[in-house]
Amino acid sequence: MNIGPYEFAEFKALAVKFHGYAAPGLLIGGCMTAAAMTALPAGVLFEALVETYNCLPDAVQLLTPCSTGNKRLHVVHYGKTALSLFDKYSGRGIRARIDPGLLGPWPEIRAWIMKEKGKEEQNEAMLERQIDEAGTTIVALQPVCVDLSRLNRKSDGPLALCPHCGESFPAAHGSLCRGCAEGAPYSFPR
Amino acid sequence: MNIGPYEFAEFKALAVKFHGYAAPGLLIGGCMTAAAMTALPAGVLFEALVETYNCLPDAVQLLTPCSTGNKRLHVVHYGKTALSLFDKYSGRGIRARIDPGLLGPWPEIRAWIMKEKGKEEQNEAMLERQIDEAGTTIVALQPVCVDLSRLNRKSDGPLALCPHCGESFPAAHGSLCRGCAEGAPYSFPR
Repeated sequence: MNIGPYEFAEFKALAVKFHGYAAPGLLIGGCMTAAAMTALPAGVLFEALVETYNCLPDAVQLLTPCSTGNKRLHVVHYGKTALSLFDKYSGRGIRARIDPGLLGPWPEIRAWIMKEKGKEEQNEAMLERQIDEAGTTIVALQPVCVDLSRLNRKSDGPLALCPHCGESFPAAHGSLCRGCAEGAPYSFPR
Repeated sequence: MNIGPYEFAEFKALAVKFHGYAAPGLLIGGCMTAAAMTALPAGVLFEALVETYNCLPDAVQLLTPCSTGNKRLHVVHYGKTALSLFDKYSGRGIRARIDPGLLGPWPEIRAWIMKEKGKEEQNEAMLERQIDEAGTTIVALQPVCVDLSRLNRKSDGPLALCPHCGESFPAAHGSLCRGCAEGAPYSFPR
């Protein structure tokens, strides 16, 4: 089956280029994203909310105009194979997830999604073939309403200079930049 | 000047395709990413830590193998025009930021970075020309050491079924999935 506008092999090539590897999660994420897109009203300006950092964000970035750096892709760290595409202004949209109840004909996909097998036991060629054949049929879609006030979409506003590190930061963050206030996850070796 | 392996116009075209628009922050982020890459030891397997969601993550995704979905791109919400590329195993690397002290010859870049002008007063053509001419000369580089224990890199581990929503989630997250435990930023309309 196609993944959005791409033939399966073509999407795999894009995946390798962008993600480093045509990971099963990226192929499955492609099916989910494509399914959700077809369920959106035509022409709607949409954003994405993805519920895992694993692979799915890259499927959205390959198939939609939403990216991390244009802030139309939002990620919550829930470890769930689910994503929503929603109207930027109303929050109304579609949530896509893999429904285990639809995986009967696809035991390799089921084993992969449910983590039933170790990496060595997986048959990756068969897994890929099943994803190609299953396409969007394994995706359950449900209307969703996203709470826009809980997404990171605000402009940073005016800048200030941090009295501790001397670098500029959004004045709205407080008297110190967050790196100095919270302790950044990096240090400068002497 | 070139931005990494791309001519300036070529990088602009990539930016439009991926980000929707050749935003000044993406062009500047391209210069920062390219500068940091040249300072890394050859052949090192690296990840990226970006200190803003504005544009810079997409510069990293266009110029490096690091992406949100392969978890080699990490973002902290500090609102700072800074990014680090670092060795995946040691955390040692290079932090790149725009040094206002280097912006003397580039008043449009300075005005943009420091938010000295409203959007209407900006001369975007001149800003782009100055970014093209300045290239990596406006980027200050500094050795950095990233604390790998503070990054999201762990595998999710075994799954469990959430007793509330019935969906699978990483068992290590607790008795409920995080969406149910914390209250997800979305709801299902009846």
